[in-house]
Amino acid sequence: MITCTICAIGSELIEGSIVDTNSSFVAKAIAKIGVDVKEIRLLPDDKLLVSQVMGELSLISDLILTTGGLGPTFDDLTAECMALATGRQLLFNEKAFLDIKKKLLSKKIPIKKAHERQALLPNDAVLFNNDFGTACGFGVFFNKAFICSMPGIPYEMKPMFENYILPFIKNKFHIQEYFSKEIYFMGVAESDVDEAIRTIGMDSDVKIIINVSKGYVIVRLRSNNGLKLKILSNNLSSHLNKYLLGIDNEILESLLVEKLKEKNITLSTAESCSGGLLGTLITSVPGSSQVFKGGLIVYSNEAKMKLLDIDEKVLRNYGAVSGECALDLAKNVKNIFRTKASISITGVAGPSGGTKDKPVGTVFIGVSLDDATSVKKFEFSGDRDAVRQRSVNTAIWMLLKKLHGI
Amino acid sequence: MITCTICAIGSELIEGSIVDTNSSFVAKAIAKIGVDVKEIRLLPDDKLLVSQVMGELSLISDLILTTGGLGPTFDDLTAECMALATGRQLLFNEKAFLDIKKKLLSKKIPIKKAHERQALLPNDAVLFNNDFGTACGFGVFFNKAFICSMPGIPYEMKPMFENYILPFIKNKFHIQEYFSKEIYFMGVAESDVDEAIRTIGMDSDVKIIINVSKGYVIVRLRSNNGLKLKILSNNLSSHLNKYLLGIDNEILESLLVEKLKEKNITLSTAESCSGGLLGTLITSVPGSSQVFKGGLIVYSNEAKMKLLDIDEKVLRNYGAVSGECALDLAKNVKNIFRTKASISITGVAGPSGGTKDKPVGTVFIGVSLDDATSVKKFEFSGDRDAVRQRSVNTAIWMLLKKLHGI
Repeated sequence: MITCTICAIGSELIEGSIVDTNSSFVAKAIAKIGVDVKEIRLLPDDKLLVSQVMGELSLISDLILTTGGLGPTFDDLTAECMALATGRQLLFNEKAFLDIKKKLLSKKIPIKKAHERQALLPNDAVLFNNDFGTACGFGVFFNKAFICSMPGIPYEMKPMFENYILPFIKNKFHIQEYFSKEIYFMGVAESDVDEAIRTIGMDSDVKIIINVSKGYVIVRLRSNNGLKLKILSNNLSSHLNKYLLGIDNEILESLLVEKLKEKNITLSTAESCSGGLLGTLITSVPGSSQVFKGGLIVYSNEAKMKLLDIDEKVLRNYGAVSGECALDLAKNVKNIFRTKASISITGVAGPSGGTKDKPVGTVFIGVSLDDATSVKKFEFSGDRDAVRQRSVNTAIWMLLKKLHGI
Repeated sequence: MITCTICAIGSELIEGSIVDTNSSFVAKAIAKIGVDVKEIRLLPDDKLLVSQVMGELSLISDLILTTGGLGPTFDDLTAECMALATGRQLLFNEKAFLDIKKKLLSKKIPIKKAHERQALLPNDAVLFNNDFGTACGFGVFFNKAFICSMPGIPYEMKPMFENYILPFIKNKFHIQEYFSKEIYFMGVAESDVDEAIRTIGMDSDVKIIINVSKGYVIVRLRSNNGLKLKILSNNLSSHLNKYLLGIDNEILESLLVEKLKEKNITLSTAESCSGGLLGTLITSVPGSSQVFKGGLIVYSNEAKMKLLDIDEKVLRNYGAVSGECALDLAKNVKNIFRTKASISITGVAGPSGGTKDKPVGTVFIGVSLDDATSVKKFEFSGDRDAVRQRSVNTAIWMLLKKLHGI
């Protein structure tokens, strides 16, 4: 099996000012073709350290994929590091510079000294196109490894990796078919999924990873043996059928949009404590405009009364965080946007605002489909972010279940 | 200077199914007290590999902070790894188990075999309380290092780290005062900030890191010498005064909410392509309800007409993605929510929907304050996520500038 280490380079990562999302993207994409990711390392812009790590890794990994450090400023050192680590010269690459110049001219950006630095690359490097920025990617062979460096800006790196680097790697390493499945469950505890797997029986040919994310349990299966993987996947899915959310599509909001499109059902939302997060998630799905008509963020009581016709009595007698309010929010937003389905969320996200009866984490979610509207009360644990995230995931899940007729 | 390596443990991280946000949190908090973070490593749930890495790191780091792998399932191996790495026995810890039992009982969760595993800890470990979950944290001394293991669930880890582990570390390592500043600029290129720093002159006693995030440039300064740091910070801030956004507060939306509170100005929003992201960001700030009244997500043209009184003629003559539409959206949403300020966003986030005149990335942002409403057109590069993120950051920035009277 081909082994890989992923390195994200940049002092801003090490000092915690930026969350590295590149490595997980690369890890997922490379694991899908059966490459064994050994480790992810986040390194500072430190020429000696990065060079040393590259040297060490080149003896134990077949593939080293790095992101970051290809920009035009003085702390962008990746090209220098790779030259140093592999004993190559750093040369002015005419081809790379012409490409940079062309891109800057087309955007009418004046060429600066700093941009010339971006064309200084290790001798005999393989170049990879950057369709969305000036820093080109490059790869060098050293010891047993192919070391491949990509820019750190996600929207430059991702298409470069998918369109140019991944095909290059597949071809160079003669990569064989590999099988993987991701099974998503909701409404069940991690420990129960663990027990289910023990009951069914594990198979040493199938690698199993369980984890919890955004309120659902994910079981990842990987194997060279497609049949064994399929058997285990089928057994597990039927054993926990009640909680099965989907296979190989992790994104709850995509599942929802897909289902709504399939059934030709339009959707609107009324959000209080989630403040627009539900709308954000739904509209993050390309093409969601086909089914999502819009939403109201009613953060204040006035807005709830004025825009969503919530009766003052409801607010006085039960409060804005109540089943009664959630019910009316869901019903009324559906009428306003004239949609077939709607979701409402009202709760206490914290850190303050909690009471004895309604502690932080108390959230009411209303879901309406055709003539039926129902409301559920939840007590989510976690901080403000966690409560909001869980609320919207649960809300999407509730509507999904309804659409599935569960 | 005390050195530290941060390790996030979990195969789900290595396979890219989860983005590790814990390490950046820990890195930021520990760098703030002057500890030098050397590297962040993401490791799989592999007992031998993790033990080996711990052994190696314990010879070169004073502090090793790990997250993850303390859960109750069979792939949670951190306690075993630490015992193996440090030559300790794994013992049933009565104190830890009593604590777990108490927590489970209070939540009426039945105690399972898996929970007992969580009380198996290395001999003579220092325990750290988990106020929001069952897995307690623990630390062991080995070689030159203190190895400290925390749970992977962010809302369990963060308070444990801040309330128990950080004070323990400060005390144990006699940590001295250290100075740091983060300066935020907007509307200026990274390369121009780089040039400004060269012009002012660097100081070898002050560590400088520049990077770009969410459309603004961040300069981080760190030093043992408070005076030198202050001089450099002042020089840089005044040199680039026009673009100065803030110091030591990175979060644009917090700055906005703070400013609105200070000036007692209420806010509403009208969002099309951003689909609620603006509302989400604003309401992610605790206490935002004091100034944010609510928003409308008007994804369809019908919704724009019906809910925000956009004239059909405007949509027909100029389109929903137009300055005219953005202007009316901003004006009308302000009237509906009766707020003093408002923001509107309408654009083409992509991947489809672009035309020759209005390619993907074209976004109109309207900002209204008191009687004045203005609109700007932008062409953002990047994918759907990037366009949406840039739109809302720019929108917040535009209103911030108005509130600052720029």
